[in-house]
Amino acid sequence: MLDLLYRDIAPDLLKVEEEIRATLESPVPAIASLLEVSGRYGGKRMRPALVFLVAREAGGVCEGHARLGAVVELIHLATLVHDDVIDVATMRRRQETVNVRHGNYEAVLLGDIIFSRAIHLLARLGNRRALLALTQAVSTVCEGEILQNRHRQDPDLDEATYYTIISGKTAELYAGATGLAAHLAGANEAMVEAFAFYGLKLGIAFQIVDDCLDVVGVEEQVGKSLGTDLRNGKMTLPLLILRERADAATGALLRRVILGEADVGDEAQLNRAVRESGALDEAVRRAAAHVEAGLAAVRAVCGCDSPALAAVGRYVLERSL
Amino acid sequence: MLDLLYRDIAPDLLKVEEEIRATLESPVPAIASLLEVSGRYGGKRMRPALVFLVAREAGGVCEGHARLGAVVELIHLATLVHDDVIDVATMRRRQETVNVRHGNYEAVLLGDIIFSRAIHLLARLGNRRALLALTQAVSTVCEGEILQNRHRQDPDLDEATYYTIISGKTAELYAGATGLAAHLAGANEAMVEAFAFYGLKLGIAFQIVDDCLDVVGVEEQVGKSLGTDLRNGKMTLPLLILRERADAATGALLRRVILGEADVGDEAQLNRAVRESGALDEAVRRAAAHVEAGLAAVRAVCGCDSPALAAVGRYVLERSL
Repeated sequence: MLDLLYRDIAPDLLKVEEEIRATLESPVPAIASLLEVSGRYGGKRMRPALVFLVAREAGGVCEGHARLGAVVELIHLATLVHDDVIDVATMRRRQETVNVRHGNYEAVLLGDIIFSRAIHLLARLGNRRALLALTQAVSTVCEGEILQNRHRQDPDLDEATYYTIISGKTAELYAGATGLAAHLAGANEAMVEAFAFYGLKLGIAFQIVDDCLDVVGVEEQVGKSLGTDLRNGKMTLPLLILRERADAATGALLRRVILGEADVGDEAQLNRAVRESGALDEAVRRAAAHVEAGLAAVRAVCGCDSPALAAVGRYVLERSL
Repeated sequence: MLDLLYRDIAPDLLKVEEEIRATLESPVPAIASLLEVSGRYGGKRMRPALVFLVAREAGGVCEGHARLGAVVELIHLATLVHDDVIDVATMRRRQETVNVRHGNYEAVLLGDIIFSRAIHLLARLGNRRALLALTQAVSTVCEGEILQNRHRQDPDLDEATYYTIISGKTAELYAGATGLAAHLAGANEAMVEAFAFYGLKLGIAFQIVDDCLDVVGVEEQVGKSLGTDLRNGKMTLPLLILRERADAATGALLRRVILGEADVGDEAQLNRAVRESGALDEAVRRAAAHVEAGLAAVRAVCGCDSPALAAVGRYVLERSL
């Protein structure tokens, strides 16, 4: 189903690739080769795809949408480059990260270059609302990550703070992409807000599923390091749910792992407990409810279902199966 | 003389402080305390001061100038935070750096937050030219730093590349501040370009003097670590001039130090050679020529000298005495 959607917007996505390629050019060979590495970080281009799918629902694709898609994707790329520095990550999309290949010095600067060029591209679009929304979104993304860092090794993290963290670090940029896509398509304020809400909820679901995959996933399937949340003492939704349901022994096991005091075999045992307690299924169920709430908001303003946006929601959820 | 200038623009600079303070606020205590640390990095506010001094010469201070001054200073702050991460610096303005106090993780994110909030503030100013120029400037700053990194431990660095590096990493943002200050003051294109050129030349002079101070300076006087360029294998203008003048033994000494193969006493001996060869005086003389070229460009469009901008130039040069 997602393949069909992508085939439909393939010409639009080609324009996004062209904008990204042109933005990441440099006449200086050293800079060009560095920018080229980050260009290869590109994945499914989920955010640009969402821009076009929303634009179609909200009034039609116009010239600015390819640029908006490129800007959002470039901001995402910049955050990936910086995330790999701060997480000391070694692999991304089955290749060495920029920080491993060129060192932290150049990786920090590369992230800054991509980000400033993305905003430069956005400034050329000349849409004040998009500029205000996306520069604000970047700050919120980073604030979410800082909050997450402050709650490392905190087995008592509450659910509200968990949602503040993932709304910031992941969902805010999705909301920017979908809300602004509707805005550029000429949608009215109620529609812009509904599509932004859909993006926010989709992003929240995406992160919850990511968190589930990290706890139980298989490394080869997703192409990046897993189990790192546990090793970094990150409490995520499946663990919050497990904590509610756990007996004393499982609760103590969870605390040991999150506090970085795990014994041999503790991680594997925690992995089993998350599955057997039904906490994992419950986390995915809640992710599905977030997607549904987003789709309902769109339905309320558009007066009908959006099969395309529903398909994206299913794709986000099914990554976990 | 600089004190008098600053007294004159004190009410303007207060408005800049207010913009900076408001931009670095957060209702989240963890974020607020982190932002507050970077707020204390503030020094002489050279860039905002230049914005007002140029505005007076170029048509008069208007409402947007305080915001432009704040944006440029915030971009400068963001680069300082990231520079301290990539240089693994421990002290800044006589206090521990953010990376030492809060770790690289939060320091990288803090730089991103300050930068994105600076651009958000700029977007609120609503001046397209300023947005395009400053987002471009940030990319150029980072590209200059990457080029510098690629030429570490390169005793054969040529002068043209040295100027490309310092124009990028330091002078570009000065040029943005002065050129845009003239633009907001309603100056014509020739004046905007002349003031941008003055900023560029002043920034180049500033960096040359900084490089001289690093080779010979006294740590307590400038409040940050010195001699780090040598230890990092950085070829700077006084060393380029020394290389031209050196006999075989001094040339070999310079190569050893830059290649990181220094023996005990080599650094002190190189320090003496830079002074005694006259390379240091020559570097400062060239910095003075850059300032003079900048002032001449302003004189050509304004038809008269600017005592205020000349005073700033003298201040930049006299830091070395």
